[in-house]
Amino acid sequence: MKKKNIVTCFLEHNHKILILKGSEKVSTYQGRWAGVSGYIEGDEDSDKRALKEITVETGLSEKDLIFVRKGIPLTIKNGEFQRIVHPYLFRIENPELIKIEREHIEIKWIDYAELSKYQTVPGLKKAFFRVYLSLEIEKRLDEIKNDRGHRADFLSMLAVETLKYAAKISEKNTFDDFFEEIRSVGWHLIDIRPGTASISFVVSEILYKFFNERKKRDRKKFSKESFIKFVEEYIELEKNSLNSLTEFASRVVKDNSKWLTHSYSSTVIEVIKKLKDRNIEIYATESRPLFEGRKTAEILSDYVKVTIITDAKAGYIAKEVDGIIVGADSILQDGSLVNKMGTSLIALAAKEARVPFYTICNTRKFYLKSEYSKIEPEEKDSNEVYEIGDRKVSVKNTYFDITPSFYISGIITEKGIFSASDISKEIKIKEKYLSIFK
Amino acid sequence: MKKKNIVTCFLEHNHKILILKGSEKVSTYQGRWAGVSGYIEGDEDSDKRALKEITVETGLSEKDLIFVRKGIPLTIKNGEFQRIVHPYLFRIENPELIKIEREHIEIKWIDYAELSKYQTVPGLKKAFFRVYLSLEIEKRLDEIKNDRGHRADFLSMLAVETLKYAAKISEKNTFDDFFEEIRSVGWHLIDIRPGTASISFVVSEILYKFFNERKKRDRKKFSKESFIKFVEEYIELEKNSLNSLTEFASRVVKDNSKWLTHSYSSTVIEVIKKLKDRNIEIYATESRPLFEGRKTAEILSDYVKVTIITDAKAGYIAKEVDGIIVGADSILQDGSLVNKMGTSLIALAAKEARVPFYTICNTRKFYLKSEYSKIEPEEKDSNEVYEIGDRKVSVKNTYFDITPSFYISGIITEKGIFSASDISKEIKIKEKYLSIFK
Repeated sequence: MKKKNIVTCFLEHNHKILILKGSEKVSTYQGRWAGVSGYIEGDEDSDKRALKEITVETGLSEKDLIFVRKGIPLTIKNGEFQRIVHPYLFRIENPELIKIEREHIEIKWIDYAELSKYQTVPGLKKAFFRVYLSLEIEKRLDEIKNDRGHRADFLSMLAVETLKYAAKISEKNTFDDFFEEIRSVGWHLIDIRPGTASISFVVSEILYKFFNERKKRDRKKFSKESFIKFVEEYIELEKNSLNSLTEFASRVVKDNSKWLTHSYSSTVIEVIKKLKDRNIEIYATESRPLFEGRKTAEILSDYVKVTIITDAKAGYIAKEVDGIIVGADSILQDGSLVNKMGTSLIALAAKEARVPFYTICNTRKFYLKSEYSKIEPEEKDSNEVYEIGDRKVSVKNTYFDITPSFYISGIITEKGIFSASDISKEIKIKEKYLSIFK
Repeated sequence: MKKKNIVTCFLEHNHKILILKGSEKVSTYQGRWAGVSGYIEGDEDSDKRALKEITVETGLSEKDLIFVRKGIPLTIKNGEFQRIVHPYLFRIENPELIKIEREHIEIKWIDYAELSKYQTVPGLKKAFFRVYLSLEIEKRLDEIKNDRGHRADFLSMLAVETLKYAAKISEKNTFDDFFEEIRSVGWHLIDIRPGTASISFVVSEILYKFFNERKKRDRKKFSKESFIKFVEEYIELEKNSLNSLTEFASRVVKDNSKWLTHSYSSTVIEVIKKLKDRNIEIYATESRPLFEGRKTAEILSDYVKVTIITDAKAGYIAKEVDGIIVGADSILQDGSLVNKMGTSLIALAAKEARVPFYTICNTRKFYLKSEYSKIEPEEKDSNEVYEIGDRKVSVKNTYFDITPSFYISGIITEKGIFSASDISKEIKIKEKYLSIFK
């Protein structure tokens, strides 16, 4: 089978999309309507190819193009040929800037609902709906994308709610059409926050379990209500995961023990709250620059004895506690921990003081290598650390560091206390779920 | 030779001192005037004995007594007996509270200048002048004692200036009298800040070198001016020690190197300033709770490239620098380092990152074990870390931690780069100087 990768770009302006006829490039389908398309050469990046095709074809420059999203690649078979179409959606502000110089190319701005009326290249409509989202869904995605106040747990539940909402407003009646639509929403939910692994985990798990595992038996008696019910059950199960986490945590957090925690972790807080009858004592680092450790201390002070310390004192206190317990922003494939800046230093202090260092989190926080590589190390506002003013002083303010797995005594999850080697097994499960997008 | 330790306490009120006659206790000298005196039993603490004697003898309670100071013990030989007198001075507000019940004891309030007129126990006058200080000297000592704004370097130079001043106002004409007076001032200078090792170092060094080493040759042609000149030369030499420090530091701080420093150290700052042509880059921890690292950064920014980081980020940055360089509050006999809270954690991070960790300080910062044991670990104001308000949260805020010697690559001093084993040699020199008080 011969494979070709191709980009197909839809330009949108004022709720209309641009289609073109007669491109010489995609020589197979001359005379048919298409998006701005072109072959991806070798291992070229599809994003770059998309931009290149548009600028060459339309005379627009990159600054005229607003990238909206890209969709799930679409495979189109034609005998022994296989074309993998990478659909893109761009918005443009000034359609009058488009200059099609080759005379035999015809262009049209059409309503997307009219796409069926045109004789298009194969799969054009399907490709379009892989980048199209209704305004309601788009709005919800934007909320998740721009959310800076909530943690991953919350955001992934928002994503699940969005899947449920997409099902509710869906007008698709067959399993295949519904799957195509919901899966596309799932894809975009993952794509808007590629660095938030828990979103990709829950979204792909739901899609995989409903559409793949259930496919055989439920295909015929499928209804969108059954999907909605499935999602609701999933949400209930998620809520229970805290109990499992607490159960496993209770195996290490013994009666009358003292623990040091760093920064703010809602999971650590909820677990400690549930273990309040154990007469535990907590030391909380203040966690500069934003002092979120104070929030930890304030919340916990209603349940256990809490003492706030400066971050620099963590090494000193490590010698006085029974162990260290922190949350997790993410757990990487090799079992290392991404968490608030300073975590790795505290883990080192724990090792030195010979006290155990635990991280506690849902397995949703487990990251594929490919996912983690998408996280850009954010350089945060320097004013959080120091107001530079007109001084010649610089500031470095990044929020996360990586704690190597050999500093970690155990990763307490809702499924058990994991060692680094257990992580790759869990990651494989996640990879299986993500195969739903292939 | 039989030895007896004895306390002799002078009570002062309104510039007069109390003397007593006929105490049965000190049976050797019945009928002679004395202070409130009594034998120290076994290994009893002399301070406790002093309080006990006064309360038993005068009917005063401890709260009526204001401890002023204690002086250099005085050895009085009498044939084969040796009495070691520990002189104390207390101030009292209400002399009318004194109740001497045993009738054969006579008491008198006298001006200290009249002491010679009385037939006293041997050495009473000498003992008194070991606790007496003129108002001018007392004022200077109080300033040093209550100073919270200055560092040890500055305070020890204040102490040296006070020695010089004491010499200037001295009316003693012989070597022995002058030595007795100046040495007593030196003793009290050390005693007011027992935790500031540099004061004991410089004071004892000056006294030892002038009065002990020079004794033989200079005894006859002694003048107080020669002492003043000696002190002035000493001050000049001290000023030069920064050049020596810089010279040794320059052996490790190479061109184009990056260094992490913690908190604020005037020595580190002065050395870096002098090495500014080396194109050094400095990372400075902000140093919570009082952010003195900002001061470090602000000062250094006129000389080198400086970046401020949170304390928690020190472990992360340790991997990116060529080494770590910090000041020292003190260096202990075993080569360990007392410095701003967090230093030991950063040293641990340095070890982990396999970069060298240096502390840089004058040898004046070297502490005898006995001196260090006198430092009370201060629990600082919790509000510096967190304003508790009516919350049930506690705060721990101590300023210093101890970095074990095996984390320290070298102790850069004005005499060279020392290892832990070199420290005890230096401490022995200091012990020799301190023998001037024996």
